[in-house]
Amino acid sequence: MSRINTAEYIAHLSIDCVIFGYEDGQLKVLLGKLPFGEELYNLPGGHIRKSESVDAAALRLLFERTQLQDVFLTQFKVFGDENRIVHSPFRDLMISYLQQKYEQADVDWILNRFVCIGYYALVDISKVKVIHSENEIDERLEWKSIHEIPHLIYDHQEILEDALDALRQNFDRYLNANNLLPETFTMKELQQVYETVFEKEFPMNNFQKKILELNVLDRLEKKYTGSQHKAPYLYKFK
Amino acid sequence: MSRINTAEYIAHLSIDCVIFGYEDGQLKVLLGKLPFGEELYNLPGGHIRKSESVDAAALRLLFERTQLQDVFLTQFKVFGDENRIVHSPFRDLMISYLQQKYEQADVDWILNRFVCIGYYALVDISKVKVIHSENEIDERLEWKSIHEIPHLIYDHQEILEDALDALRQNFDRYLNANNLLPETFTMKELQQVYETVFEKEFPMNNFQKKILELNVLDRLEKKYTGSQHKAPYLYKFK
Repeated sequence: MSRINTAEYIAHLSIDCVIFGYEDGQLKVLLGKLPFGEELYNLPGGHIRKSESVDAAALRLLFERTQLQDVFLTQFKVFGDENRIVHSPFRDLMISYLQQKYEQADVDWILNRFVCIGYYALVDISKVKVIHSENEIDERLEWKSIHEIPHLIYDHQEILEDALDALRQNFDRYLNANNLLPETFTMKELQQVYETVFEKEFPMNNFQKKILELNVLDRLEKKYTGSQHKAPYLYKFK
Repeated sequence: MSRINTAEYIAHLSIDCVIFGYEDGQLKVLLGKLPFGEELYNLPGGHIRKSESVDAAALRLLFERTQLQDVFLTQFKVFGDENRIVHSPFRDLMISYLQQKYEQADVDWILNRFVCIGYYALVDISKVKVIHSENEIDERLEWKSIHEIPHLIYDHQEILEDALDALRQNFDRYLNANNLLPETFTMKELQQVYETVFEKEFPMNNFQKKILELNVLDRLEKKYTGSQHKAPYLYKFK
């Protein structure tokens, strides 16, 4: 039986991270496969040490699961319903599983009411080294397209949807496209990121006008491709 | 000596409310005058009952202090620094005061680390009935212009500034002007609210174009004023 050093953490307060990445023209999210239920997943998350700030806890949890630092990570909403964990249809499965793995005092601590602080992160999927620790409740982490989200436990579907809303709401303000593209890119590649995130088409001319008006891009030299008049300009964020 | 029924509340988690109102062309905020320090104030706040959601707690706290229901209230940020209360220069004054008022166990509970969930509200100042209860730490509530904010305890200045940023960020999305104006208003009155909140001038023609493009206003009949061609149109939010 494992023990969680629950005295190290603030009780009743948790963090869940919606970790977004962009790959093959798709927006993906990193989910944990639970070892019970049929194809049941959760958002990676954890608790806040008494000695660290909430933001530092979110960075630590992200690093523990992906080995990434210096990535875009922001809180977006608190999920504070009093029954968000207590009234889950998967609660009994969770209890049985936890009782095999942890001592009863820890199970009781985990199954208390938790107010969850939602964070979302944007990462370069190619740089993620998914790590699995024995302390995690999920058995492995997997990237899933936002169009193929499996069953999520508790209110994690709502947290994911609200993170997607927040991502769209903040996309220009935080220049989040910058976190999903390589350092240099063509206007067309940038447009594809926008179309993927917002799930709609942007007419090319309008899109280019809108983006250039934001005044956030530097235009670089055209790449010599042998047929220079067709080569697209490369851009990077200022 | 008073007692706080601390067992009723989630420990380590608090709410602070930035309550905005609009009066005499000024944006104002409701602050609590503390009975110690020189002209020291706080944001009205409180704790979350174990049996209520975080949003319900915020609504309850707002009602307890203003007697208002059905007002615009939204969470905007979590303030989770581990030293936000512990390292305050006013901590000793707060301890002395609390020790006169409460039993030591309650003082210890209050002075623990608290993660604060920030909410902001928009209210009609004329409808607010400020209520004072013996349980409050502040001795009275006062409206202050955002240009004449007194010394605030802990990180409450930061919370207020972040609330103002969030208000501006969300102003069009939540149609927050609707929460600061009477039911019908002229374009000029609407423009004054925008100029007050954003602290800048909007050229009249541009402003009218921008607002009408949002497609959120209904134009009503001109009011007959005796000199009809000069009478401004009245508008209301759809």
